[in-house]
Amino acid sequence: MAASDPTPACDLVIFGAKGDLARRKLLPSLYQLEKAGYLHPDTRIIGMGRADWNKEQYTEQVKDALSNFMKEKLDNLLWSKFQARLNFCKLDVEDKEHFKKLKELLDQKDHPAIHYFAMPPSTFGSICKELAQAGLNSPPNRVVMEKPLGKDFASSQVINNQVAEYFNESQVYRIDHYLGKETVLNLLALRFANNLFIPNWDNRTIDHIQITVAEEVGIEGRWGYFDEAGQMRDMVQSHLLQILTMIAMAPPAKLNADDIRDEKVKILRSLRRIDHRNVRDTTVRGQYIAGKVQGHKVPGYLEEDGVNKNSITETFVSIRVDIDDWRWAGVPFYLRTGKRLTTKCSEVVVYFKNQVFNLFTGSYLELPQNKLTIRLQPDEGIEIQILNKVPGLEHKHRLQTTKLDLSFSETFNQKHLADAYERLLLEVMRGIQALFVRRDEVEEAWKWVDSIMAAWKTENRAPELYESGSWGPKSSADMLTNDSRSWNE
Amino acid sequence: MAASDPTPACDLVIFGAKGDLARRKLLPSLYQLEKAGYLHPDTRIIGMGRADWNKEQYTEQVKDALSNFMKEKLDNLLWSKFQARLNFCKLDVEDKEHFKKLKELLDQKDHPAIHYFAMPPSTFGSICKELAQAGLNSPPNRVVMEKPLGKDFASSQVINNQVAEYFNESQVYRIDHYLGKETVLNLLALRFANNLFIPNWDNRTIDHIQITVAEEVGIEGRWGYFDEAGQMRDMVQSHLLQILTMIAMAPPAKLNADDIRDEKVKILRSLRRIDHRNVRDTTVRGQYIAGKVQGHKVPGYLEEDGVNKNSITETFVSIRVDIDDWRWAGVPFYLRTGKRLTTKCSEVVVYFKNQVFNLFTGSYLELPQNKLTIRLQPDEGIEIQILNKVPGLEHKHRLQTTKLDLSFSETFNQKHLADAYERLLLEVMRGIQALFVRRDEVEEAWKWVDSIMAAWKTENRAPELYESGSWGPKSSADMLTNDSRSWNE
Repeated sequence: MAASDPTPACDLVIFGAKGDLARRKLLPSLYQLEKAGYLHPDTRIIGMGRADWNKEQYTEQVKDALSNFMKEKLDNLLWSKFQARLNFCKLDVEDKEHFKKLKELLDQKDHPAIHYFAMPPSTFGSICKELAQAGLNSPPNRVVMEKPLGKDFASSQVINNQVAEYFNESQVYRIDHYLGKETVLNLLALRFANNLFIPNWDNRTIDHIQITVAEEVGIEGRWGYFDEAGQMRDMVQSHLLQILTMIAMAPPAKLNADDIRDEKVKILRSLRRIDHRNVRDTTVRGQYIAGKVQGHKVPGYLEEDGVNKNSITETFVSIRVDIDDWRWAGVPFYLRTGKRLTTKCSEVVVYFKNQVFNLFTGSYLELPQNKLTIRLQPDEGIEIQILNKVPGLEHKHRLQTTKLDLSFSETFNQKHLADAYERLLLEVMRGIQALFVRRDEVEEAWKWVDSIMAAWKTENRAPELYESGSWGPKSSADMLTNDSRSWNE
Repeated sequence: MAASDPTPACDLVIFGAKGDLARRKLLPSLYQLEKAGYLHPDTRIIGMGRADWNKEQYTEQVKDALSNFMKEKLDNLLWSKFQARLNFCKLDVEDKEHFKKLKELLDQKDHPAIHYFAMPPSTFGSICKELAQAGLNSPPNRVVMEKPLGKDFASSQVINNQVAEYFNESQVYRIDHYLGKETVLNLLALRFANNLFIPNWDNRTIDHIQITVAEEVGIEGRWGYFDEAGQMRDMVQSHLLQILTMIAMAPPAKLNADDIRDEKVKILRSLRRIDHRNVRDTTVRGQYIAGKVQGHKVPGYLEEDGVNKNSITETFVSIRVDIDDWRWAGVPFYLRTGKRLTTKCSEVVVYFKNQVFNLFTGSYLELPQNKLTIRLQPDEGIEIQILNKVPGLEHKHRLQTTKLDLSFSETFNQKHLADAYERLLLEVMRGIQALFVRRDEVEEAWKWVDSIMAAWKTENRAPELYESGSWGPKSSADMLTNDSRSWNE
């Protein structure tokens, strides 16, 4: 299968070649790009890591990673193409010699180098500095960074400043992998290519919007990292706010990187601040206790291995977000995300306004709202819930909510739906920043989140406990009940 | 299965007991109402016909009709209940004695009598007169009349006047069986119970609307009647204009008979007149020639048995209808109906306006319109066509029109979808006129149709020939092409 638009050649330098991200996500995604014909024949993949590997040993490691983390079997022909791209450089972040070696290797080709930092952010500054000193930081070279970029506005500024010393913003690609998901990208098409929705995407027609990112899993051995971060930093600051901006932003002037990101930042700047005055009314923090998820008994957060038994870190957050702009005044966005919930699902539900008048009082005292559900995962698709008459001979019109459904897998009938990382890697190679988070986006998101976290800290309350396998703490349901609404469940 | 709302008892008098309508439609529908528990225990069915049958002979005839025209087998228990309701009176329309006999029979019960005229309209006047003279015309007695009510405004007035001499309008139930169809009734729910559609049901959001009633069949032995009538009188004046009014009417004040019919009449009165000045631009007449329908060879209209070889009767009509009111100014309704077309289907397609601006010029020079398809038959359901991104890694957004679908049979999962006649018979028994055509509706429809027919007559052109199994004459497609649109096919 050949790609329809040729990808420029580059050298992809993976810092942290031994790490989980590289092995689980980046290498399998690169292999899929190879398979789809999206890698330029000259493109090389250069692993950088602490190991004392030579090229052959690294090649074995890559083969091992692909075998372990891909569902499909390695194809011999593809593998021989793929492995020919592989190189390895030993990396000690402080060792200038290693960067010289890297430069020698990169100098063999007249390509942009893409430095992918699959390592802790604390190392980014040093790596950038050494790259610069080795003369590897000028455009068209690029850097790719994984979240979390800091744990608040201040620490994210430190990292961004360190990087900015050596790389322009136009060279920097910050990854939030939700932006690589097909269904998130489709939001642009859904919102801006359909006249059924365009004139209805505001406070005249929409009542409120719910965004849910629910996980079944718990901490899965990431206790050290997670207990420091919590669900707010780990999920809300990144994925949920990204989805929110894609749903709420005004149409961009053009579909290019900065036009889109300008609109997203504008939404982030319009988020109503949550602080000690309104934090109790607009946020809920939860922590899971033991329970059953999909029929299996699971331990509570404080019973996980290696845990601090006094931890008050939240594993669940729900927030009522108000966007203070002309489009959304009076239309709350309810965000909800948590671990060990009933089911794994990411979705956006747009509730249209109630009827101003009810002609069917004989059947319904109040008519249910129409809603548009955008299923981001799993079972990606779109659903519109409307009211129809129940067939039958009763004189009164019996109505029933019914669903018009569009399933992407049925409709597009594709075997392999590209992983978010495939798309994001490809876009970096193309040098297009639209699906990456600009510095001001990260910082605006942090400022808003910081204010909530500060209010929580002042309150110093323990999170509300919720049973594993539920939809979170009771207060989360109550928050919507107080607004005469309820979560989509 | 018991009915949820009890039906009042009545005597249903079927004039034309031997006829096709009674045998094919009315008796099977009454049996289904029996089965569903909708017939009051005291309700009687009285056949009236020229035959010299006694009660037993009539009962045999009914059994025979049920066996022939129902898909299911007669159930013994149900049949014994049903046959106990049957009576027969000999009928010669001019014979007062027969009406006296009927009166004696009806006097046995203190019920409303429902006189169902399943006979040619030329007999309605005499029957009404005799009913009156026998004292059988006062409320709560009712009359039910089948179309065609005349062949133009003048002749429909004659019939309506004859009936009106003896029955008030509140006693008169004029049947257009399309108004008994579940999917047509659902239009009320769809339009007035869904806020997604309500604020978008006008010329700000809708571009145009298509109404198609396509038949596969040809004349099927009805040549004598049909050649006099033609597709315009047979289908447009009744079914298509009824669907149009249900789609176009403003919300009624209440869901009762006169409020709904007031709104429908208002639409009929707002139809832009078509006469010799605009008939060539806004109408197409066609007549089928031989061809293949669903793979089977079929003869042309002029090759049918008993035909007048010079007939210029139309078997196909398409019309551009403009509704001159505030809601629909600038939104044409395109009607299309014909025999021997590609497939049997009745549907309404609402085309939403084109985007005022196209953000996806890289993928589409012009974005396809969103459309809402309401499938009246077969495969009843609702479909919304929108644009989604095609999954894939191309940088440009590839879009594809995709369908959100709601199938009634899948959704409501009912074995027996009530036939239009079941509902309409039941509504007459209930004494509710909402689903019946009021006199002013019939007359307004005729006035508008008459003007077109008169213009055609003045032109005196032969209809445009079209091959059986096609979608009608080329001019029908051209009419929409001239408006930069095309039929939904």
